[in-house]
Amino acid sequence: MNYKLTLAYDGTRYDGWQKQGNTSKTIQGKLEQLLTRLEEQPIEVHGSGRTDAGVHAKGQVCNCKLKGTWQEEELRDVMNQYLPSDIAVLQVEKVPERFHARLSATGKTYCYRIWTGKVPNVFERNYVYTHEQPVSVERMRQAIPYLLGTHDFKSFCSNKHMKKSTVRTLDSIVIEELTNEIRITYHGNGFLYNMVRILTGTLLEVGEGTRAPESMADILEQKDRQQAGVTVPPQGLILLSVDY
Amino acid sequence: MNYKLTLAYDGTRYDGWQKQGNTSKTIQGKLEQLLTRLEEQPIEVHGSGRTDAGVHAKGQVCNCKLKGTWQEEELRDVMNQYLPSDIAVLQVEKVPERFHARLSATGKTYCYRIWTGKVPNVFERNYVYTHEQPVSVERMRQAIPYLLGTHDFKSFCSNKHMKKSTVRTLDSIVIEELTNEIRITYHGNGFLYNMVRILTGTLLEVGEGTRAPESMADILEQKDRQQAGVTVPPQGLILLSVDY
Repeated sequence: MNYKLTLAYDGTRYDGWQKQGNTSKTIQGKLEQLLTRLEEQPIEVHGSGRTDAGVHAKGQVCNCKLKGTWQEEELRDVMNQYLPSDIAVLQVEKVPERFHARLSATGKTYCYRIWTGKVPNVFERNYVYTHEQPVSVERMRQAIPYLLGTHDFKSFCSNKHMKKSTVRTLDSIVIEELTNEIRITYHGNGFLYNMVRILTGTLLEVGEGTRAPESMADILEQKDRQQAGVTVPPQGLILLSVDY
Repeated sequence: MNYKLTLAYDGTRYDGWQKQGNTSKTIQGKLEQLLTRLEEQPIEVHGSGRTDAGVHAKGQVCNCKLKGTWQEEELRDVMNQYLPSDIAVLQVEKVPERFHARLSATGKTYCYRIWTGKVPNVFERNYVYTHEQPVSVERMRQAIPYLLGTHDFKSFCSNKHMKKSTVRTLDSIVIEELTNEIRITYHGNGFLYNMVRILTGTLLEVGEGTRAPESMADILEQKDRQQAGVTVPPQGLILLSVDY
């Protein structure tokens, strides 16, 4: 039986989603370790995509094939009982055999949180990136139209050896200005390696005034990582949901 | 010059507010260590009261006497630069010499957060107490009137050897029922050792149905710690503010 799991995790303590050898501390590794123990046979977990070290999730999705004797809520509760307190199974659903968390995904929503307060945020410190230079959210918003739509996002990808297509469709970028915080929410059909973090770093440079909003068109056209802005740190990033 | 500092801290990694010898990890210890280094002379910090190991604060107050060459925002920023990321100085104010964080305090507000969701809360895990048994918030609210006002709260104090008065005035207890969370906010002129945690444990037992709301009057009258409910864990507790 094929099971779809929706997960939340605090990525602070982990080397990201994807298992690397036997010793590293990854979300996938923790899940496979537990499911292998529960099922008494090696279980493989397929994520919707990798999240980097330090990146969080409120709606990561994975699937795995299990013997199938588990009720949905029973599996959820047993897993939550044994998982570390920084990983939680939010929902378990039995799904058709052909469902694959990565291959069946049609879209994703990511959020990047930027703390702009003059005083550090003690309670959210692992979930925000602190940016001290003042930025104009109005300017940042002016850059959005250049990025929306279907483009080759090669300039916004850290993987130099990416052989597959770097064309993606960005449906929306919403920039919210909250008290002491700027929150940027991205929705698209897929994201390249570090794409959200480079987009955010570039938008912040536009907000600081060191780049023009209209320069986004140029950056896309150049298809060169060097043209875009910095990769902002992982801890401000959270995978909110995956569409199927 | 006498300085009043308003502090936020995540108490998870600390042995509470009060320094204990030289080696323990306390909030007071961290502050005194830094101020002693900045001032190049031993500095003592006076808190409004102790918080236990694992208890948090969004508005703890302390005062200290410094050479007085610091501007308020300058001291705040320098301290935040050197303090660990789980302690922050929210505000610095120059105050009259007679101001003492503990002796001048006239009231305090504490909040206790209870997580009632079926799935663990990954991101707030260190700031809530997870309570699995169902409780009736309506029943809990019925217990409030018995506790409000001026009473001898000896039954709600963990310190058996308390020689000073155990009489306190509780002005308000507000119980909010949020999605998957019950939040209890207490305001009073002062709180005994573990008083908020024992009050919360007792209210939860009322909510579960194992105690009658009107039994609060009896518990107060007995002046015996054994009559009240359990002391709930520290991580759900946060000191919100101190009145002067």
